[in-house]
Amino acid sequence: MRVGVLGSGPGGYVCAIRLAQLGAEVTVIEDKDIGGVCLNKGCIPTKVLLHSTEIYDLLIKDSLSLGLKIDNIKLDFELLNARKDLVVNQLVEGVKTLFNKNYVELVNGRGKLINNREIEITTPQGLKIMEFDKIVIATGSRPMLIPIEGNRLDGVLTSDDLLKIDYIPDSMLIVGGGVIGVEFANIYSNFGTKVTIVEMLPSLIANMDYEIVSYLEENLIDKNVDIYKNAKVVNISKNGKGLRTEIITEDRQTYISSDVVLMATGRRPNIEDIGLEQSGVKFNKKGIETDELFKTNIDNIYAIGDCTDGIQLAHQASSAGIVVADTICGGNFHIDFNTIPFCVYTKPELAGVGITEQDAKKNKIDYKVGKFPLYGNSKAVIAGDVSGIVKIIIDSNTKEVLGMHIAGLNATELIEIGGLAIRLEATANELVSMIFAHPTVSESIHEASMDVIDKAIHNVY
Amino acid sequence: MRVGVLGSGPGGYVCAIRLAQLGAEVTVIEDKDIGGVCLNKGCIPTKVLLHSTEIYDLLIKDSLSLGLKIDNIKLDFELLNARKDLVVNQLVEGVKTLFNKNYVELVNGRGKLINNREIEITTPQGLKIMEFDKIVIATGSRPMLIPIEGNRLDGVLTSDDLLKIDYIPDSMLIVGGGVIGVEFANIYSNFGTKVTIVEMLPSLIANMDYEIVSYLEENLIDKNVDIYKNAKVVNISKNGKGLRTEIITEDRQTYISSDVVLMATGRRPNIEDIGLEQSGVKFNKKGIETDELFKTNIDNIYAIGDCTDGIQLAHQASSAGIVVADTICGGNFHIDFNTIPFCVYTKPELAGVGITEQDAKKNKIDYKVGKFPLYGNSKAVIAGDVSGIVKIIIDSNTKEVLGMHIAGLNATELIEIGGLAIRLEATANELVSMIFAHPTVSESIHEASMDVIDKAIHNVY
Repeated sequence: MRVGVLGSGPGGYVCAIRLAQLGAEVTVIEDKDIGGVCLNKGCIPTKVLLHSTEIYDLLIKDSLSLGLKIDNIKLDFELLNARKDLVVNQLVEGVKTLFNKNYVELVNGRGKLINNREIEITTPQGLKIMEFDKIVIATGSRPMLIPIEGNRLDGVLTSDDLLKIDYIPDSMLIVGGGVIGVEFANIYSNFGTKVTIVEMLPSLIANMDYEIVSYLEENLIDKNVDIYKNAKVVNISKNGKGLRTEIITEDRQTYISSDVVLMATGRRPNIEDIGLEQSGVKFNKKGIETDELFKTNIDNIYAIGDCTDGIQLAHQASSAGIVVADTICGGNFHIDFNTIPFCVYTKPELAGVGITEQDAKKNKIDYKVGKFPLYGNSKAVIAGDVSGIVKIIIDSNTKEVLGMHIAGLNATELIEIGGLAIRLEATANELVSMIFAHPTVSESIHEASMDVIDKAIHNVY
Repeated sequence: MRVGVLGSGPGGYVCAIRLAQLGAEVTVIEDKDIGGVCLNKGCIPTKVLLHSTEIYDLLIKDSLSLGLKIDNIKLDFELLNARKDLVVNQLVEGVKTLFNKNYVELVNGRGKLINNREIEITTPQGLKIMEFDKIVIATGSRPMLIPIEGNRLDGVLTSDDLLKIDYIPDSMLIVGGGVIGVEFANIYSNFGTKVTIVEMLPSLIANMDYEIVSYLEENLIDKNVDIYKNAKVVNISKNGKGLRTEIITEDRQTYISSDVVLMATGRRPNIEDIGLEQSGVKFNKKGIETDELFKTNIDNIYAIGDCTDGIQLAHQASSAGIVVADTICGGNFHIDFNTIPFCVYTKPELAGVGITEQDAKKNKIDYKVGKFPLYGNSKAVIAGDVSGIVKIIIDSNTKEVLGMHIAGLNATELIEIGGLAIRLEATANELVSMIFAHPTVSESIHEASMDVIDKAIHNVY
């Protein structure tokens, strides 16, 4: 069985490895960076910046109270960028090693389907046509610019551009308060940049539980970030050396000056010029259409990750890659797509899995909420990092866990406790029956679980 | 129902609150600090020291690679101790607030049972006798000195003493490589103290999985800690201003000089002079004897936590407190004592739940091990903290998770994923079927679970 995988991001590379492990002869075709956006321009480099800037911010604000006397501390952008590149390179090399180890062939070039079995590849050495029994499209996505006047001016940047600049702007307006927008707002406000976020919807990161998002919002405001919600960007124009952005909030018109504007207005699937028409693969403007097993309308062609019209998350793409590999090679790696965690790497971290409270309300579910604020948690107090909450949503009747939402220290790690609880259809009583280690932040999950069945011990509210 | 609780540690205070919530009239009798050893001399203050010293150690070693230019950095012991006291006081006040909120009466004085219903309390205002329907003994434990020559010399300290000293010793010999010993070794080596650990058994923290402990051992050696295993301390003598400790390893006799000696040789139950004889409560030298619901041989008297002959862990004591409250008042707070996590707060953190590999071998269980080393985990690479491993032990036949053991970043938080898996009798396949968020350390649990069923994607070994 010969399988061609178009793209080496978290969807494509994982799919390729799994295919090879199951005995397929696999070729990955990549014309850009191995590891895709996640590794090179997304999850990984942003988290490197976040890691250092958070330590910097902590030291600037709290070093004395931590017992540390520091004379001078400076964040060196050049050194930091060097570390970012180092980490990215190390992880890219890791993927290459895994390809070698699992006998995955890597072809460097741009691939385009010329029918449902053949891919024409433009390589540095010239054109090459390869034939496959099955094809997996995993071409990813790229930043989308909203169609407003001035969106191509100098200084209007995408997240890709922002990761390449070699200076720290004094001020930045971010269009879009989704995950990408708030993560960069957090990083750049740590750098000392004056950040303004303009979000069209009534909440930042509107797909997450509003209550946990409010903790992030509070923290951003503390970091001197200006936030406009229910606000629409009208146009961007030049303003001396910088830019001037016109926004409308309710009935008011406002002009905001900034050195740069970050367009964090979503990502567009990479579906152009990859031969979808030639191979007959159906797609819409949101991406390639697939069934629940990620098969397109063409029998031997699959599509996974950001290039499809599904959820745009690295871990979703990887899981889809595994499912596709198993479908193709007859593996049996069952994956449950009902418990996809959603994480935001900010201060505080946000993470959620399962249903949000606003969705439970909207869908008229008979639910109950339990909460525990981190100011009542010993470990958070020890870390001097008490902004946050654990929130658990259960079915009022069955007591089954329907959702868990966490703002605070290590939220992105702790959320898998909620993921596992939902996966295994655990009840609040089962969570309560556990012994959580002391002192840990995870104890707050225990407390929230006790709260939801009216048995809170540390009823600090 | 009148209930007297002797002691306000994590066992006593939680039991008292739960009793009050269930309608009992509760009196807590405490002659020392509210919150007991855990809050005042154990878990909490040590973690405050660890938190700051780890940041200090990180900055000393890695600040440049993190992109931080720091001129001068000094760990100020006085400031740090002030923070330790601040955190402890805040949490003690928290317990007092909970007592008030839940109408728990607090009597400051030393209590002694004079029969199975009456407690005589020596208060600052004089003797007082109170009568109760039920009594819960939660008097905790204190450091134990091993009976060797020189164990009372100046400079021979217990963990209690060490938390009170106002200087950083140049050198320290630690007798005992259990949890307390290694936690202080980690803290003081961060301070720059030359630390030596002498452990009688062939492994540090011998009740934990040997493989994860090896990661800690490696890290301690990197921090210039000398470790003697299979070594017996013979005596301690004066040596100029310091101390000289004679130890025997296999056939060799060695003398080690140090400024101070920390006796981390276990903890002794506080069972003297509390009226066990007068009330007829059975005990042995390991502590008060109880049944599985923490009832003593006397019908209306219960005992929980370190003063019993059970496990000495704060979270075990709290859980026992809840069980006792429910037994007394007819609550229904089922707790599963099979999944008690065991945590060590060092660098790397260690945490385990369920069966260790050495015990699986010893008990001839038909088990299988899956592993994932943190050097293959993106988040660990981002944090520059890749020393560690996730290890999962399953039943070869049923694939049920029997144990999980983690060394590394956030191990103490992540371990509850293993706790929940064991609690709900999850199989490796069920863990594998989950979608873990990227990038997180928790993904390593996913990888270890895939490894144990021979489906590792990131097969970095």
